[in-house]
Amino acid sequence: MSDETRQLAQYGAKTSQNLWKYPGAREMAEEAVLDWVACTIAGAPDIRIAPLFRMAKPRTSGNAWIAGHGDRGHPLDAAFLNGASSHVLELDDIERTAYIHPGVATVAAAMALADDDPALDTDTFLRAVVVGYEVAIRVGRSVNPSHYEMWHTTGTAGSLGAAAAASVILDLNEEETTWALGNAGTEAAGLWQFNADGALTKPYHVGMAALHGVMAALAAREGFSGAHRILEGEQGMLRAMSREPKPALLTEGLGDTPPAILGISRKRWASCRFTHPSIDAVMALRDPGRSHEVESVLLRTFNTAIRVAGHPNPKTPQEAKFSMRYCSALAWVSGDVGIHSFASIPINGEVQDFFEKIHVEESTHYNALMPEKMPGAVTITWRDGSVSETEVLNPEGDPENPIVGKKLDAKVHSMLRGMLADSQIQGAIAAARRSQETARYREWISHLRLGANVQ
Amino acid sequence: MSDETRQLAQYGAKTSQNLWKYPGAREMAEEAVLDWVACTIAGAPDIRIAPLFRMAKPRTSGNAWIAGHGDRGHPLDAAFLNGASSHVLELDDIERTAYIHPGVATVAAAMALADDDPALDTDTFLRAVVVGYEVAIRVGRSVNPSHYEMWHTTGTAGSLGAAAAASVILDLNEEETTWALGNAGTEAAGLWQFNADGALTKPYHVGMAALHGVMAALAAREGFSGAHRILEGEQGMLRAMSREPKPALLTEGLGDTPPAILGISRKRWASCRFTHPSIDAVMALRDPGRSHEVESVLLRTFNTAIRVAGHPNPKTPQEAKFSMRYCSALAWVSGDVGIHSFASIPINGEVQDFFEKIHVEESTHYNALMPEKMPGAVTITWRDGSVSETEVLNPEGDPENPIVGKKLDAKVHSMLRGMLADSQIQGAIAAARRSQETARYREWISHLRLGANVQ
Repeated sequence: MSDETRQLAQYGAKTSQNLWKYPGAREMAEEAVLDWVACTIAGAPDIRIAPLFRMAKPRTSGNAWIAGHGDRGHPLDAAFLNGASSHVLELDDIERTAYIHPGVATVAAAMALADDDPALDTDTFLRAVVVGYEVAIRVGRSVNPSHYEMWHTTGTAGSLGAAAAASVILDLNEEETTWALGNAGTEAAGLWQFNADGALTKPYHVGMAALHGVMAALAAREGFSGAHRILEGEQGMLRAMSREPKPALLTEGLGDTPPAILGISRKRWASCRFTHPSIDAVMALRDPGRSHEVESVLLRTFNTAIRVAGHPNPKTPQEAKFSMRYCSALAWVSGDVGIHSFASIPINGEVQDFFEKIHVEESTHYNALMPEKMPGAVTITWRDGSVSETEVLNPEGDPENPIVGKKLDAKVHSMLRGMLADSQIQGAIAAARRSQETARYREWISHLRLGANVQ
Repeated sequence: MSDETRQLAQYGAKTSQNLWKYPGAREMAEEAVLDWVACTIAGAPDIRIAPLFRMAKPRTSGNAWIAGHGDRGHPLDAAFLNGASSHVLELDDIERTAYIHPGVATVAAAMALADDDPALDTDTFLRAVVVGYEVAIRVGRSVNPSHYEMWHTTGTAGSLGAAAAASVILDLNEEETTWALGNAGTEAAGLWQFNADGALTKPYHVGMAALHGVMAALAAREGFSGAHRILEGEQGMLRAMSREPKPALLTEGLGDTPPAILGISRKRWASCRFTHPSIDAVMALRDPGRSHEVESVLLRTFNTAIRVAGHPNPKTPQEAKFSMRYCSALAWVSGDVGIHSFASIPINGEVQDFFEKIHVEESTHYNALMPEKMPGAVTITWRDGSVSETEVLNPEGDPENPIVGKKLDAKVHSMLRGMLADSQIQGAIAAARRSQETARYREWISHLRLGANVQ
């Protein structure tokens, strides 16, 4: 290990580099922002994060947009609240090999600072997003998979992605960007322990990661130094937070290979990504009219999915999102695992009946395919002894089976329907894809970020 | 491990318990606040944290006192800035067995919230301080010594001390306090990597720990839940951040034994605590008139001191505070290692000459005495072949050799001299010790927190 952190800073600070030479990169960044905005607007009114809005309300003053609120606020508050809003519905993007939601803290941080710069161009903003994804994903890959046993990568590596994006927006030089990564990295945090209780902490991790990125970048701009080797150093993040750190992954091909944002997955269902292969498999065999003929249902998947999304007996919506049994039962009965699907907790009726028929089993074969593939299979044994079976190797939204273009438009529509007029949603979607014709960030983003106040 | 976090929360939430039955406890709390206020007022103008003030300035509005500033601000900003100010001079208290500065984040968090409660009584405030110290110290003991190899305990365990103190000020119940500990604990962070670069991060850790405590407690008051077993749980802090966690130390004797605040050490010198045994030993043999007769100087101490405070070639004040060679040379030449002693970097002249004669050696005997004792020894070999030698087992300020009463008064005078009139300093010192006669917190603290603006 030598100077990986500095190489990442250099990559971010070289704002002249042409990221758009890679086919699809710019479109992917536009769509990442569109997906994030939809998640954030839809998430802001969620009751689970209302306490955070109540807490922040008396305090904030500034220019930064806060989703769901008419007012604007300080960038740190905007980063924190928008970060939490964007993650609470579990519909935000992920990157499999890094075990991370790369967009949430990253875009929240970039946007909170972009609102303070009237001259910012759309191109710089999208570049900040691509750089933030790159750093978040590379840090996640370098510490995982062992890191994920204890740490929520979106909180830890997410802080560095947020810092990298914030540094581009603030136009920090290489040294300042190193400091920003250093101080965001020294504060990288987020333990999985909350999940055992179904506590509300998960979006809090994301809000704090965004806040750490903004704070560290603002401090660096004022001259506040930080560790130069926060990732690869003797007392840095890789050694402290991973049993098998892989520093080479931080910089391998950096700048010479297509940006990591091109490999992300988007989510169709509003539950933990690890429930998705099972849901997709159940959807493929779905026949609710024959529910009474089902004897038993076997879900087979990889061990991480069972550990993270194996909640045996969910009592709250938060727990239900981490229960592949619950999500699969919901998919079978209603054909949807959407934003509003979790209101029906406690479970009962048909969903409960199907839930009780489901068993989960670890597959060593699938363990070995992870994380490059995220597989799951369903076997339904019918009362008459016959068996139906299907396997999903790449759940919908993975790069091999992507949610882009019209599929993304449909997702955005389904999330914002009821909150905004269809014409508004359609307008935002169209505007998102016109970043090259709308050079000023302020103008571009004004078409995307739409009302829907919550107080 | 079972419910240690809850037991700590219960201890904090039982505000009726009589902590003052332990002789000296109340006086120790009064003095802890006095020592903290002096460190914070003296630290606020320090150039190393000026960027943090510049960053926060445009933003803050609220009732909370911010040291060194005429204005008041939001509790989160006050916690962050006062936390950083209180630690930057390295004169804040420590607890040896927990490897922590227990007061800095704890008092910063309590005070930031106390200013929002006009009815708060002095007794509750001092109780919050004692509870915060108890939690910070117990968490530090439960993860150390291995934790300290990577993590700066004052940032990690400090977050929980801050949350515990904040919870008492906000009068949270047991469940809410558990949530506050859960969310402060999930954000517990602070890596030592910054030290290799002499970067400015150290007080940043403290500011963030105080902020995490305040934020988690405010969120808990609004109903935002957190992990119930953030310390002892399968994916909690002890397992994630320690090679040999000792959960029993979290609760052993809790409430039935004298509070941990009674075992703290106060600092006399403005450098890393691990430099103090060597400085005290050098001071005992000090004879600068004979400097030219010194052939060589050998410092022997424990391995952690060498790792943390063994900077071989300090180039900045921050590095110099972590160089026992530099601090010992300074002590020999000037008879002081005070706030202003580090302005003379780069070293030259007499200090440089003495510095070059010093060698440092690890003592396995002293390794074994740590952390119950913090030993060091100095051997001076004179040009004529004779040898002078002395050993310090408990540097000044340790409980066995305490800085209390008039010795603390002298320390406070030396720190604030030049910033405030002697009569003001004397008044503050006297007021600090009259907490029983000044029932209202607002009145009591108004005598202690004195002017000295920096902008």
